[in-house]
Amino acid sequence: MTRPSLPGAPSQSVPSIEVGARYILDLCDRIAAHTDVPGTITRTYLSPATAKVHALLRFEMEALGMSVRVDSVGNLRGLYPASTPSVPVLLVGSHIDTVPDAGRYDGILGVAIAIALVRSLEGKRLPYAIEVVAFSEEEGVRFKLSFIGSRALIGDLTSQDLARSDAEGITIAQAIRHFGLNPDDLTDAMLTPGTFAYFEPHIEQGPVLESLGLPLGVVSTIIGQSRYDLTFQGKANHAGTTPMSLRSDALAAAAAFIAATEGLANDTPGLLATVGSIHASPGAVNVIPGSAVCSLDIRHADDAIRNSCAQQLLTHAEKVAHARGVTLAIVDRGAQCSVPMDAALRTTLTSAGAPHAPHSMPSGAGHDAMILARKIPAAMLFLRTPGGLSHHPDEAVSLEDVAAALTTSLQFLQALSYDRPHTPGAPS
Amino acid sequence: MTRPSLPGAPSQSVPSIEVGARYILDLCDRIAAHTDVPGTITRTYLSPATAKVHALLRFEMEALGMSVRVDSVGNLRGLYPASTPSVPVLLVGSHIDTVPDAGRYDGILGVAIAIALVRSLEGKRLPYAIEVVAFSEEEGVRFKLSFIGSRALIGDLTSQDLARSDAEGITIAQAIRHFGLNPDDLTDAMLTPGTFAYFEPHIEQGPVLESLGLPLGVVSTIIGQSRYDLTFQGKANHAGTTPMSLRSDALAAAAAFIAATEGLANDTPGLLATVGSIHASPGAVNVIPGSAVCSLDIRHADDAIRNSCAQQLLTHAEKVAHARGVTLAIVDRGAQCSVPMDAALRTTLTSAGAPHAPHSMPSGAGHDAMILARKIPAAMLFLRTPGGLSHHPDEAVSLEDVAAALTTSLQFLQALSYDRPHTPGAPS
Repeated sequence: MTRPSLPGAPSQSVPSIEVGARYILDLCDRIAAHTDVPGTITRTYLSPATAKVHALLRFEMEALGMSVRVDSVGNLRGLYPASTPSVPVLLVGSHIDTVPDAGRYDGILGVAIAIALVRSLEGKRLPYAIEVVAFSEEEGVRFKLSFIGSRALIGDLTSQDLARSDAEGITIAQAIRHFGLNPDDLTDAMLTPGTFAYFEPHIEQGPVLESLGLPLGVVSTIIGQSRYDLTFQGKANHAGTTPMSLRSDALAAAAAFIAATEGLANDTPGLLATVGSIHASPGAVNVIPGSAVCSLDIRHADDAIRNSCAQQLLTHAEKVAHARGVTLAIVDRGAQCSVPMDAALRTTLTSAGAPHAPHSMPSGAGHDAMILARKIPAAMLFLRTPGGLSHHPDEAVSLEDVAAALTTSLQFLQALSYDRPHTPGAPS
Repeated sequence: MTRPSLPGAPSQSVPSIEVGARYILDLCDRIAAHTDVPGTITRTYLSPATAKVHALLRFEMEALGMSVRVDSVGNLRGLYPASTPSVPVLLVGSHIDTVPDAGRYDGILGVAIAIALVRSLEGKRLPYAIEVVAFSEEEGVRFKLSFIGSRALIGDLTSQDLARSDAEGITIAQAIRHFGLNPDDLTDAMLTPGTFAYFEPHIEQGPVLESLGLPLGVVSTIIGQSRYDLTFQGKANHAGTTPMSLRSDALAAAAAFIAATEGLANDTPGLLATVGSIHASPGAVNVIPGSAVCSLDIRHADDAIRNSCAQQLLTHAEKVAHARGVTLAIVDRGAQCSVPMDAALRTTLTSAGAPHAPHSMPSGAGHDAMILARKIPAAMLFLRTPGGLSHHPDEAVSLEDVAAALTTSLQFLQALSYDRPHTPGAPS
């Protein structure tokens, strides 16, 4: 079949894609100027800097003929109507909050690309509406609660969540009121009726695409994870007076566990297992450690493999502890199952990248798409991240890769425009 | 040959040995009452509590006919004259300073036994004088400098040492003056002329005698040690987005090193190797550690084996770092060679314990005997330490073991009285 060109779609000249890519990077720079902590990029949920970003993005979106509002949890949402009324809605975007001393692209880039997509349409209408969303909260910094923005869209926020306090004792409900919004009307933040899919462009935040020399990836699954704290309790003793055979060295047990963790992950395709934190006490050069506390973070796209490997490692930890006369206490810090992205949307998105099909890859980090996927089909496009560096002021992305993402995203919209709305979520 | 009984020597009735042992434990209790930090036993170099212990011990020793003085670095020294003037002097004692929140026996017990030995003589004279020494400083707490007391006896303290400051900026020289002493007259603290040997009873501070079911040990060697700091420098990265193959996990490298250290020590008789401290950064559960800093403490009675094993471990550390794309920086924190105790004195002391000969064993901890051994023959008698527990308020010793130590020490004095002074240091 032949596909008529959409404005801004791949038949568009290369220079205008470059103009769009430059607009995206410039918009990220302008957003980065608004921060809670001068000299860094730090923007937490409903901070004054968030209001300034809202004003900036509202101005950009209204200039494109979009109707813009801030929903009851502080998400900025701009609707670009379709060619006909009462048609389905494609939700596109990401989040605008950051970790402390962040880079300028994590989350923000997805919002900028979403606006640039509408901008590339140059006023032309698609057979579905586009709703651009800038989620107010994803990182969980202010309230130690992640995904406040996207959870509100699927009706997952509870009154218990709203009663949660930040470091200054302000609850989420109070913060929402201080921002001029009404936390009693959470339905106001629910998914716009007719929303048939969510599309989130995002930097990879890892080194995979760079290592493969590829600009783009399509996320297959947001992989599940389990976290544990392990406390090895031995006996502190003098390093000079206690023979090896009479020791209960908690750190030696923990080290054997860490080595086994690395070994199993190396031997199990797709398994990520990390001991990120360790504390040994009393911590003197001449004292055998009496206790060692470490974390375990274990992830795999296949929940069964993750669970089985976690059990294997915890059993091994018991074994290496027992062999040293050390006891082990394990605290389960929670688990999260894998969330596959929508198969039909992935196929459409992969085809949209032709002839340079994006690499299919799991996401090891959580994203808003993981939340939305509970209610509607969701897809994510990853952009190569130089050095895999993220959550850092030096976080970067190249103009070329942004141009490739814009081209692929426009193709994706075009493919959707032909396949939707009659069979939302079906393969294109 | 027949040996005439000495007063307080083994021919003495068992009850009077028990009386002596009770005196020793009681004296340790009375010394423990003097502390810098109420509620704990903490007595640092030249603190007010030290002056109170001096007064207590001076009273005890003067009651035994001893002439008592405080030397120019604050060691309390009591001379019990011999049967004839101008004869050699046996130095007996240990230290009275403590670590913070200490037990009541480390060091102190040796001083109490020394006084109890003189007390057991009941005024009778030996063919040599006995000088009881209570070293003012061994633990190195106040000035981060160990063995100030015993080093002064061998003339090893320098003006640079005296210029060293404590946490409040007071120098050692100033502390000596504040205590009413004269730091300009360090020769005043030198070994008393004619001192032919040093004998130090001390708790083992380890679990060896207890594990063997034996009350006493004779120290063969104070074993040498080397210390190193190792810094593994990898790359911090997201635990979810960084595949195992693209990681430079500093903690995984350190863990492999710690495991190898434990393994080598288990496989090498007499080797003690300990990683007592570790710090991994940034230390978040979901971040691959970018750096890991750990200590290495390695000890062996044979300096050549210690050095060779240290080299082997550091080479292995380089290897496990390299295999993970991690760099390694090693800082040498100093080494100390093994100090054998005097062979003749060891033989005499071992025979003195007959028919229950004390166990011959190395000391993994440093002691004042290690310093004195540079100038004069030195010997140490170890007492079983319940649970191997030391540097802890629950540090303990049993009345029976103290009685055994007193009996053996009296036998030792008797043997010395026959073999000395004609061949100081020669086999008995």
